[in-house]
Amino acid sequence: MSEKTGGTGRRGFLKQLGMAAAGAAAFGAEAAAPKPRRDVRRWDATTDLLVMGSGAGGISAALEARRSGIQAMVLEKFHVPGGSSSLSGGVCYLGGGTALQKALGFTDTVEDMYRYMMAASGLYADEKKIQLYCEGSVAHFDWLVANGVHYARKFSEEKEISIPDGSLYYCGSELVHPYREQARPAPRGHVPPSPHLIGGRDLMKALTRAALDAGAQLRLRCSAERLILESDGSVAGVSATDENGRSIHIRATRGVVLAAGGFIHNRPMLERFAPELARCSVPWGRAGDLGQGILMGMAVGGAVQRMHHGFVILPMYPPETILNGILVNSRGQRFVPEDGYYGLVGHEIAFKLDDGQAYMIVDKPHAFAWKDFRFNVAAEGATIAELEGRLKLPEGSLQQTVEYYNRHAKDRRDPLLHKAEKYLAPLKQAPFVAYDVGLKNTFMPVHTFGGLQTNTDAQVINAWGDPIPGLYASGRTSAGLPVAPYIGSGVSIGDGTFFGRRAGRHAAGRKA
Amino acid sequence: MSEKTGGTGRRGFLKQLGMAAAGAAAFGAEAAAPKPRRDVRRWDATTDLLVMGSGAGGISAALEARRSGIQAMVLEKFHVPGGSSSLSGGVCYLGGGTALQKALGFTDTVEDMYRYMMAASGLYADEKKIQLYCEGSVAHFDWLVANGVHYARKFSEEKEISIPDGSLYYCGSELVHPYREQARPAPRGHVPPSPHLIGGRDLMKALTRAALDAGAQLRLRCSAERLILESDGSVAGVSATDENGRSIHIRATRGVVLAAGGFIHNRPMLERFAPELARCSVPWGRAGDLGQGILMGMAVGGAVQRMHHGFVILPMYPPETILNGILVNSRGQRFVPEDGYYGLVGHEIAFKLDDGQAYMIVDKPHAFAWKDFRFNVAAEGATIAELEGRLKLPEGSLQQTVEYYNRHAKDRRDPLLHKAEKYLAPLKQAPFVAYDVGLKNTFMPVHTFGGLQTNTDAQVINAWGDPIPGLYASGRTSAGLPVAPYIGSGVSIGDGTFFGRRAGRHAAGRKA
Repeated sequence: MSEKTGGTGRRGFLKQLGMAAAGAAAFGAEAAAPKPRRDVRRWDATTDLLVMGSGAGGISAALEARRSGIQAMVLEKFHVPGGSSSLSGGVCYLGGGTALQKALGFTDTVEDMYRYMMAASGLYADEKKIQLYCEGSVAHFDWLVANGVHYARKFSEEKEISIPDGSLYYCGSELVHPYREQARPAPRGHVPPSPHLIGGRDLMKALTRAALDAGAQLRLRCSAERLILESDGSVAGVSATDENGRSIHIRATRGVVLAAGGFIHNRPMLERFAPELARCSVPWGRAGDLGQGILMGMAVGGAVQRMHHGFVILPMYPPETILNGILVNSRGQRFVPEDGYYGLVGHEIAFKLDDGQAYMIVDKPHAFAWKDFRFNVAAEGATIAELEGRLKLPEGSLQQTVEYYNRHAKDRRDPLLHKAEKYLAPLKQAPFVAYDVGLKNTFMPVHTFGGLQTNTDAQVINAWGDPIPGLYASGRTSAGLPVAPYIGSGVSIGDGTFFGRRAGRHAAGRKA
Repeated sequence: MSEKTGGTGRRGFLKQLGMAAAGAAAFGAEAAAPKPRRDVRRWDATTDLLVMGSGAGGISAALEARRSGIQAMVLEKFHVPGGSSSLSGGVCYLGGGTALQKALGFTDTVEDMYRYMMAASGLYADEKKIQLYCEGSVAHFDWLVANGVHYARKFSEEKEISIPDGSLYYCGSELVHPYREQARPAPRGHVPPSPHLIGGRDLMKALTRAALDAGAQLRLRCSAERLILESDGSVAGVSATDENGRSIHIRATRGVVLAAGGFIHNRPMLERFAPELARCSVPWGRAGDLGQGILMGMAVGGAVQRMHHGFVILPMYPPETILNGILVNSRGQRFVPEDGYYGLVGHEIAFKLDDGQAYMIVDKPHAFAWKDFRFNVAAEGATIAELEGRLKLPEGSLQQTVEYYNRHAKDRRDPLLHKAEKYLAPLKQAPFVAYDVGLKNTFMPVHTFGGLQTNTDAQVINAWGDPIPGLYASGRTSAGLPVAPYIGSGVSIGDGTFFGRRAGRHAAGRKA
């Protein structure tokens, strides 16, 4: 609250704009305040492009920078590289007729991919980025392959979170109403074959190897903390804490890429900007997702966008037999096609239901086997009426919902929500089970999508769209392609690698 | 996209931070960039507190500043004062046992008011502001009366948008499930009696008169355009265009209050930050709601909050007989208690229904009379089945919904949504009518709630919570008490007057 922020000249001015350490309060943001170049006595190291964070967005920028003939140095706070990308499934959402799609006999077009992405992204769709991404998608797949990412020539028909041996699958809501009517569906999930959800590890291994082979420098346990600004406001480098705990200054002649992930582990920041996500149970991401990159960008005038958006996952399948059940809210009503992408289903629960409470209702043949058991049983009943009573749903509501569902499901129809035919069968064999898939009691991983607004060259832009010279952001430090509800696995990694590359290329074209 | 933003010294730095006119692109934001004090050759006028905008938030700040012994000058862009406040119903949401509540025999406590506001404001509730507001509510009402705002000693039982002769009414969802169980309901809408929704005009007339009588200066057709910053980053004044079209500089020794309304009429800004609101039909507010105050604050590092939030109004009543009908979505399901505050109902349609489509279904005795007619008739039917077919709802869905509703309504019960008893009667007398209350075809006024983040003294704060010295915001230029869904009429005007006053008082306590 102090107003003793006086002082003279630019220093005082910087301070006013939150650009000095003193007085800062919330969520460790003080550590994100920039430093004027004139306070830097000497540079401890120099590179062309300095990248903060070694996840998909950062490594891709470094790799492309090297390929474009400039130096690149990646700082990674932790002792292992890869960031949250290496914790992910490693899926890239790609299409328009990639080599893998063609090899497996699937037809896809840039237009259909674009149509799906626009329709599913809804009101928050970034048309320019989506268009560029769809047009560049085939070449981007080739780039991943050329850089050592391995894909199996096998399509997987199952609705899975990880694909044990295939590499192409339907990873979003392409086959789900109303999207299947709006764009010709094609499988666009491209993933290294991975028995245990470790596609991300394999993807990042390959890209990191490629970046190192191409001559990028990687400094582990070295954490970037503040941007250093020239007097003209352009970015000159970063101050960091190195492997030995020393404060160092690194000069970056072509720019800095903020690629330090989202802010799912920064609780005060999450509560302030994304309260819907804050009420989900499992913050998902490496420990580094503290919003540091976003705060550093905000501190130099970077605009943020969609800060309340995120990826809320209800991991219902496998096995997909569970999708024969119906999802109901606490009014006993169905509210989302059960076969929707799990990011869509999670979003509907977290953002659309005020009490965040939902149940998955199945009959005996479709209940989870013990080995697949994943949710708490909220209630069981010999009849639907009994189940309804135990769940304390409005009297008659669930009975009516099931009656309506069964009436049509026996003809393999779902006039209410158009769930795909293969999941349609009447719920009739007791006991009936209700799994608790509400926010309170369910394993529901979540991470953030909001971040610094960037243009199509991954430059961070200010409140009215002007780029901040020398400053880039990629991956979840930026507000990229992923919006809420999330439209399919691999849009985030796809965005990070694609626009990360564009950052590296753009920086190479800048005057040093 | 140009990076030729170089230059030297602070000027270049300002430019980089978007603080110069050149290069700016989107939504007229360039005109919001601040000016360094050293570029001001002479001051054309000097005051203590300079207020931008003459709505409730601005006038209250000026009045309280005068009462605290400092000068105040209000700049109003248009030829009439009052801003969007004078276009509003003029309701103040007040309670805790105001003189009017007591005079009319109603019991209310600060705790019940606090409980309602916290519960209804949901995840985005600002606890500190709500607490302060509830505690100060009784005194705030007295202040309004002392400043000439007239209230009638009459309670109005009707659910109305304007109250012809009463001054106290239930103006939110206090009597609606689940809030009526969470806090003891009390009528908290305090409004000058007003036959034609002109309470806002009367309220603003009184407050403006009081401010002028207290010695505040009001300059009409004089529009503030940029903040002027001292070299230490504090706010020194504004540059403006005066009554004769001349560029002038006005010094403000104690501070500037940005009280220039929201951004409902700035289409690009609306589409970027609040796409849900952008799809509503009727931008509601005076022509000055262009976001200029918000942009000026952002331009000096002010943080923004809840930019996607707004007030979406579905003006279903009067007459309230319409509430005997049921609201259904395009799946034929009920989704909100029909007797909920119209801001709640509007929010559910605009934010929760992907297609933004809903219908109000009534039977003959509850249809609008011609004089009250307000919505398009989407369909009529001799039976519910016929109506359902004409609306192209999922087969059997509406029939089932009505059957369920009727079954309980005949006993005056609503187990699904707990609509109040007085609106419960079976829909049985043909013809049945469906009014279109979807976003596309309905008169649905909307305005914005997002804006500059302020502390409880109405000081604008930066990304990590530090106040910007000398800068205040109030009314819809700030992110105040109103959140989405809106919890009741008068929270916005209440917030504007209450925190506007705090701005005036705080500024008076600053060193000149």
